[in-house]
Amino acid sequence: MGREVDLVADLGEGFGAYRMGDDEALLDIVTSANIACGFHAGDSRIMDATVVSCAARGVSVGAHPSFPDLAGFGRRAMDLTAAEVRTDVLYQIGALQAFAAAHGTRIRHVAPHGRLGNLVAVRADYAEAVADAVASLDPSMIVLAQDGELSAAARARGLAVAIVGIADRAYRSDGTLVPRTEPGAVLRDPAEIAERTVRMVLEGVLDSVDGTDVPVECDTVLLHGDSPDAIATARRVRAELVRAGVTLRALRAKQVRA
Amino acid sequence: MGREVDLVADLGEGFGAYRMGDDEALLDIVTSANIACGFHAGDSRIMDATVVSCAARGVSVGAHPSFPDLAGFGRRAMDLTAAEVRTDVLYQIGALQAFAAAHGTRIRHVAPHGRLGNLVAVRADYAEAVADAVASLDPSMIVLAQDGELSAAARARGLAVAIVGIADRAYRSDGTLVPRTEPGAVLRDPAEIAERTVRMVLEGVLDSVDGTDVPVECDTVLLHGDSPDAIATARRVRAELVRAGVTLRALRAKQVRA
Amino acid sequence: MGREVDLVADLGEGFGAYRMGDDEALLDIVTSANIACGFHAGDSRIMDATVVSCAARGVSVGAHPSFPDLAGFGRRAMDLTAAEVRTDVLYQIGALQAFAAAHGTRIRHVAPHGRLGNLVAVRADYAEAVADAVASLDPSMIVLAQDGELSAAARARGLAVAIVGIADRAYRSDGTLVPRTEPGAVLRDPAEIAERTVRMVLEGVLDSVDGTDVPVECDTVLLHGDSPDAIATARRVRAELVRAGVTLRALRAKQVRA
Amino acid sequence: MGREVDLVADLGEGFGAYRMGDDEALLDIVTSANIACGFHAGDSRIMDATVVSCAARGVSVGAHPSFPDLAGFGRRAMDLTAAEVRTDVLYQIGALQAFAAAHGTRIRHVAPHGRLGNLVAVRADYAEAVADAVASLDPSMIVLAQDGELSAAARARGLAVAIVGIADRAYRSDGTLVPRTEPGAVLRDPAEIAERTVRMVLEGVLDSVDGTDVPVECDTVLLHGDSPDAIATARRVRAELVRAGVTLRALRAKQVRA
Repeated sequence: MGREVDLVADLGEGFGAYRMGDDEALLDIVTSANIACGFHAGDSRIMDATVVSCAARGVSVGAHPSFPDLAGFGRRAMDLTAAEVRTDVLYQIGALQAFAAAHGTRIRHVAPHGRLGNLVAVRADYAEAVADAVASLDPSMIVLAQDGELSAAARARGLAVAIVGIADRAYRSDGTLVPRTEPGAVLRDPAEIAERTVRMVLEGVLDSVDGTDVPVECDTVLLHGDSPDAIATARRVRAELVRAGVTLRALRAKQVRA
Repeated sequence: MGREVDLVADLGEGFGAYRMGDDEALLDIVTSANIACGFHAGDSRIMDATVVSCAARGVSVGAHPSFPDLAGFGRRAMDLTAAEVRTDVLYQIGALQAFAAAHGTRIRHVAPHGRLGNLVAVRADYAEAVADAVASLDPSMIVLAQDGELSAAARARGLAVAIVGIADRAYRSDGTLVPRTEPGAVLRDPAEIAERTVRMVLEGVLDSVDGTDVPVECDTVLLHGDSPDAIATARRVRAELVRAGVTLRALRAKQVRA
Repeated sequence: MGREVDLVADLGEGFGAYRMGDDEALLDIVTSANIACGFHAGDSRIMDATVVSCAARGVSVGAHPSFPDLAGFGRRAMDLTAAEVRTDVLYQIGALQAFAAAHGTRIRHVAPHGRLGNLVAVRADYAEAVADAVASLDPSMIVLAQDGELSAAARARGLAVAIVGIADRAYRSDGTLVPRTEPGAVLRDPAEIAERTVRMVLEGVLDSVDGTDVPVECDTVLLHGDSPDAIATARRVRAELVRAGVTLRALRAKQVRA
Repeated sequence: MGREVDLVADLGEGFGAYRMGDDEALLDIVTSANIACGFHAGDSRIMDATVVSCAARGVSVGAHPSFPDLAGFGRRAMDLTAAEVRTDVLYQIGALQAFAAAHGTRIRHVAPHGRLGNLVAVRADYAEAVADAVASLDPSMIVLAQDGELSAAARARGLAVAIVGIADRAYRSDGTLVPRTEPGAVLRDPAEIAERTVRMVLEGVLDSVDGTDVPVECDTVLLHGDSPDAIATARRVRAELVRAGVTLRALRAKQVRA
């Protein structure tokens, strides 16, 4: 049986009269969506419409909770207590759940957004707060994370974890990402990104900037949609995965790493 | 078998460092709580703590959705479309549901707050928006309303409706409330309010300012807690109902008017 | 001496990571800017940058205060008291003044945005609230308004008023606008809009949908920038005014109607 | 000629329907007010009313800008860039300026609130951002600060600085405050606090927890008003200063440390 993988992107990141990214294009490419929940982006109209679009196209619905910072798009660290992270995440997942329930579907996964997403990889208290929120609300939800504190905290609570694979970033031979501040950190060539994605999915490795291969887990491939180039790259990634015989399918709890 | 009635009050109406009302005192008096959901009051910490307090004391949890207007405490009309009312109400109920689920309970009722609560009694489009939100999310939830458009729209969708009885306001002989702008519109004497409540619950009538009795439905008695006098009055109402042999019990869907 | 007119557009209407309209293109076309002040759009970074851009190009700075409704972009009516309108308008003008002062310029005019802008034309209490705010803060500011309650209230307080001329909307022979809900209410053809603008500025009339000419005051022409077509139309309007010998110049208090 | 000192407290920290502290009592005690500007507390109605109260009683008006975090009351660190701190501070001072101008007074000082106030004492980039904001807007404003990065950055720009003296906290012999997490860090006894304040103002020293005296600068004494005890203490401090012959007077730019 061939390899399966999920394709995921951030959706519903407009607010009020504002739009962000090309959701329509992405909905034809991805198998799962991280939907903004109103704290960094997204309002109730956009959440409702995005869930409807996902349900209509069979795209799996996920929550994308954030720090409460619309002006900063959730990209600025905020010194919340772990208790505040737990309740803010519960609030946001619950709000999205209402739209899922109203449209006959449900939330399949949770993926912290932006700076909160960075911090749960390295701060154990925040990781435990998010994992506690998910476990107390619906332990059948899958936690999307990079390998780090959140994936560990989620597994410790018996939650399914899906590791997010990133193919458009350069890696060092120790498996860490080259920081964005360094030249060459972010890859731009669609063909190269697609080729790397296929290799990451089928072989579990990526070549590092040092010339050696590094092992890279990947249950779901993160795609971007914030520019015409990004959409073209996302289409190329999808096409190359299909050509390589990979089955594109939304995550299911039993299939991912417990 | 004796008469039963529910006692309900607005709870969790602080925000951040701010507090509003005496929740601790009310929790020992009421059988149900209208919990603010973050749009006119309430934040995720307060919602979490309020649900925990309700669960610990057996107080039934209800959602108290509002127009999105923290600065106006939800008391200012906003010209939302009916679609916006529907999605804003879904968002708020969902957010509260997360805390209910996390603490092993669930939302039993929905009671629109403030100006939205006034408008759903008279605007059919808003009434349908709220009723649609509840019906699509969880049709076992009870809709708390005055007699009006919302109660009609909810019943038309097969939802259970509980009529809110108000004993501290003067009535005209045609059954309408004396407007707050007129003298004597709001009653202050705890003994009088308690006596009227007992009569409203047991006999289904109140005396009007014109001297005649008016029929007044009451499935749940609305209590206030925003002043020491209010708490004293709420205690008196509860005590007089008990003395009159009324059983105080949270609403159950099968028992209220369908 | 030839006729002068001001060209004005709404600028700085992004928020956080969001952008709205093509400010760069508009800055080369207009002589004045209505700058969002954070209530319907705009944040402190965007306000600062927009004032800097205006100052660098000699574009006159104006405040564009709104109802406090970011999610509704200030297009939804809110039932504020007149006192709340007055203080909310003061707050917003003051916030923009800080950026003007910090960059060596000052606010020349005030133009209420969106629904507030509609309501001040017909609600005397709101009109007086805005006029009071301007008069108490800086009576040298010019009030931009359609002919209506605000222009009257401003003149009654000795404030200079500039009437906003709208050339891309159809008029009835009684001088009122054809409602947007009717076909033909909004004109799209750049050549036609430019020709009407020139006639409005030079002759003070526009042809109505009934075939007769109606008198239309115009101290400043409102341009839009929210689409590529809008920018092309704005450029055409500017070019035709110049070709017709009209001098484009920002409003000065002594020159407008007192 | 006797010693003069300013008494300052945080005022106007309600929001919407919420109230915080006893502003009426404090207004009869202080000579200056730090007025919240809408980011951690305060809304346009409250700002307007607070400025009116200050003007009526001769209390000097100051701005109390904060991180944009109403839910956290400005007490949570946010990872803003220095540029964001600068523009957020300009926005807030400007908003308050509008109310000062509307009521015939002006802002005399700026005192960063909460966590921002802590950080400007130790982060040079934030200190420079605040000092730049004040210098560009109105260099006659006095900067209230503890001794640290902000006081240095303000002086480097030629701004007047007033050092805030704190008499209800324990000091170590090296002049640093005993952290709040240690026992005895916060003093409660009104008589002791008043006695320490008098000594701080007249002699420029306080006794440390190690038994030795430490030099403590004090141009303005910070008073609290968030409890009945706090008001009683503030009254006692004022009375003891007067009895000791100290003149209570709002800060004037020429008198404070340049």
